Amino acid sequence: MIYVTRKEHFNAAHKLARPEWSDEKNEEVFGKCANANWHGHNFNLYVTVKGEPNELTGFVIDLKVLSKIIREKVTDQLDHKNLNVDVPFMQGIMPSTENLCIAIWKQIVEPIAAHGCYLHAIKLYETENNFAEYFGPEH
Amino acid sequence: MIYVTRKEHFNAAHKLARPEWSDEKNEEVFGKCANANWHGHNFNLYVTVKGEPNELTGFVIDLKVLSKIIREKVTDQLDHKNLNVDVPFMQGIMPSTENLCIAIWKQIVEPIAAHGCYLHAIKLYETENNFAEYFGPEH
Amino acid sequence: MIYVTRKEHFNAAHKLARPEWSDEKNEEVFGKCANANWHGHNFNLYVTVKGEPNELTGFVIDLKVLSKIIREKVTDQLDHKNLNVDVPFMQGIMPSTENLCIAIWKQIVEPIAAHGCYLHAIKLYETENNFAEYFGPEH
Amino acid sequence: MIYVTRKEHFNAAHKLARPEWSDEKNEEVFGKCANANWHGHNFNLYVTVKGEPNELTGFVIDLKVLSKIIREKVTDQLDHKNLNVDVPFMQGIMPSTENLCIAIWKQIVEPIAAHGCYLHAIKLYETENNFAEYFGPEH
Amino acid sequence: MIYVTRKEHFNAAHKLARPEWSDEKNEEVFGKCANANWHGHNFNLYVTVKGEPNELTGFVIDLKVLSKIIREKVTDQLDHKNLNVDVPFMQGIMPSTENLCIAIWKQIVEPIAAHGCYLHAIKLYETENNFAEYFGPEH
Amino acid sequence: MIYVTRKEHFNAAHKLARPEWSDEKNEEVFGKCANANWHGHNFNLYVTVKGEPNELTGFVIDLKVLSKIIREKVTDQLDHKNLNVDVPFMQGIMPSTENLCIAIWKQIVEPIAAHGCYLHAIKLYETENNFAEYFGPEH
Repeated sequence: MIYVTRKEHFNAAHKLARPEWSDEKNEEVFGKCANANWHGHNFNLYVTVKGEPNELTGFVIDLKVLSKIIREKVTDQLDHKNLNVDVPFMQGIMPSTENLCIAIWKQIVEPIAAHGCYLHAIKLYETENNFAEYFGPEH
Repeated sequence: MIYVTRKEHFNAAHKLARPEWSDEKNEEVFGKCANANWHGHNFNLYVTVKGEPNELTGFVIDLKVLSKIIREKVTDQLDHKNLNVDVPFMQGIMPSTENLCIAIWKQIVEPIAAHGCYLHAIKLYETENNFAEYFGPEH
Repeated sequence: MIYVTRKEHFNAAHKLARPEWSDEKNEEVFGKCANANWHGHNFNLYVTVKGEPNELTGFVIDLKVLSKIIREKVTDQLDHKNLNVDVPFMQGIMPSTENLCIAIWKQIVEPIAAHGCYLHAIKLYETENNFAEYFGPEH
Repeated sequence: MIYVTRKEHFNAAHKLARPEWSDEKNEEVFGKCANANWHGHNFNLYVTVKGEPNELTGFVIDLKVLSKIIREKVTDQLDHKNLNVDVPFMQGIMPSTENLCIAIWKQIVEPIAAHGCYLHAIKLYETENNFAEYFGPEH
Repeated sequence: MIYVTRKEHFNAAHKLARPEWSDEKNEEVFGKCANANWHGHNFNLYVTVKGEPNELTGFVIDLKVLSKIIREKVTDQLDHKNLNVDVPFMQGIMPSTENLCIAIWKQIVEPIAAHGCYLHAIKLYETENNFAEYFGPEH
Repeated sequence: MIYVTRKEHFNAAHKLARPEWSDEKNEEVFGKCANANWHGHNFNLYVTVKGEPNELTGFVIDLKVLSKIIREKVTDQLDHKNLNVDVPFMQGIMPSTENLCIAIWKQIVEPIAAHGCYLHAIKLYETENNFAEYFGPEH
């Protein structure tokens, strides 16, 4: 098995707040991330795929193909968007980095499997100092 | 003269759109940056101060002091905020990276001069690929 | 399971030398790292915690809480210190990057477990080119 | 077990193209990577070794020793070279990042084992956005 | 005046050698950069433009426009190419980082001026450790 | 004129404290940087040289030559050393980043001028967040 990783990025707004909670409770739990008028980040996304290199090309997956899947299924829908409001696949989901990883996994696990290899990991940097990783529902 | 630089950062939401313009015109001019529901960035801010090193300390300015000025006058007011809505010193100003540099300069030029040295440059990264620099109204 | 990581940093002095060895032997084994008058590094520390995201917050652990644990138990005790001399939890331990990882693990494994999640990894960069990782005594 | 990693780098030319294929087919499969007159990269290589820290030195392996192995067996043979033409251990192998990882593993797995520890991973960045990892023939 | 910078990148092969010199002389002068079978780099290019921000947009230049100029005039012609062989605007020019800066300047100085602002600087990283800067023929 | 820059690095210990001052005054002025048992940093040094590219080589200065000057005159004397104690050219000088820049300038200005070009700038990062720059005694 070889693991290959492609980095993509998107810039988005979000807030962490539950609408059924008071402003005070949201600020107590989420701190400044609950700011009612939103804040935002430059997100860096690393998608790792595992498989055997093709004997003729030496590729686990053509990274142009992987990049295209990520853009169509993920970053075109997140880039310059509001993660709480604008994104169909995030409806009803608190846009924490953890939950974003799970939602991104679901968007691309099947399109990647269609190319004869396996999605291994989603790694998402919210800032240089904070990131989350998800290895799928079986891990 | 020696130049010393302190890096600080803030995460904020904004949009680039003129309220008196139609949505179509805003999207034509500003592209996806005009998204009505905002987007955001991790901004990295570099503040450069020039002066002579103090003979006893070897410092142009104590970087803890410089950091405190930047936080009080700039990043505490921008971090986890909406640059179009939440920030008193950005009222009525299009929050482009260029205009942010000028506004940040005005916030700190005098507090820095009070320490016997001079503000030389504001450098602001909006993304890893885009940044602006401002050297004051006389340059 | 989701894995979340927080980066913190500290700047410290150390030397690699055994007091019971001669200077010649220490230099032979440790090279310039044995310099009697110390040298130092900007250490970058990545702490990874695993768990299930909370249904209400979407967090495995509030990263502000994780950051506070790391600062109180680790970086406040290491930053701007001499790792051979000043640090209670490093007494009698050769301050290699490997041994630092193990000692840092011991400092925070229980405080993290008290928040309903698990310490997964300590990753410590001594320089951009050298780092160590520890996944606990059972791995 | 502790894991230690050493970063090394090399700058090389290559192309991705099969000599038995037509130019059209090579361009169809490999895109601009098939350019007949070559292109190149700054490769960043991370070699991870696992083992128990030595009781006296605190080292899994002396990183100067690890660096020397990597330079002699790998980067001295790849740096400022053409990966398709100049490198004995890449003869007959398509120089994809994946295949480079496997070939580099084979070059250093035994010299590292001779030092009482184990090669754990080869991670190779072709660009900031693309990298491959290999954990040996049994994984 | 405000200065805005856009980063772009390209991956290319080159060698540093004069055809009228012997192999021995080329290796003596250029070292391993003279390797007959080429080597290559991931080049990072920073283009800085200066001007006054537009009153309505807050932009010195729309960075999408600047990016398009750089791609059409520079990186589309250099990416995945051989700088000695494949590039019309580098014919007869030794492809040192210094000379690349001058050649890139000439390619874009007029298209940028057509947008009411001025090319200020070309900064080109050949590696993380080596870069060149050019501020035009009058500096 | 073209400007070329070479990055080198060194890891060193230091403290900021005046021996004629009390511990209390040193801590008041220098904070934790005054720790009696030292602390340390990974310093990144950028040396910029300006000149005209040689017509035959395309080089302002051969960067191997520049690297050799920096190593012999600067980093070999600073790396894995104590800046307050071990370094002849820092005797009697407070090892602030500012003063280090001036001292490094003096070490290499003449050896560089001997190669037909001019030292333009010393830029020294003490941490990712703090750096100083010096452009010589006439600026």
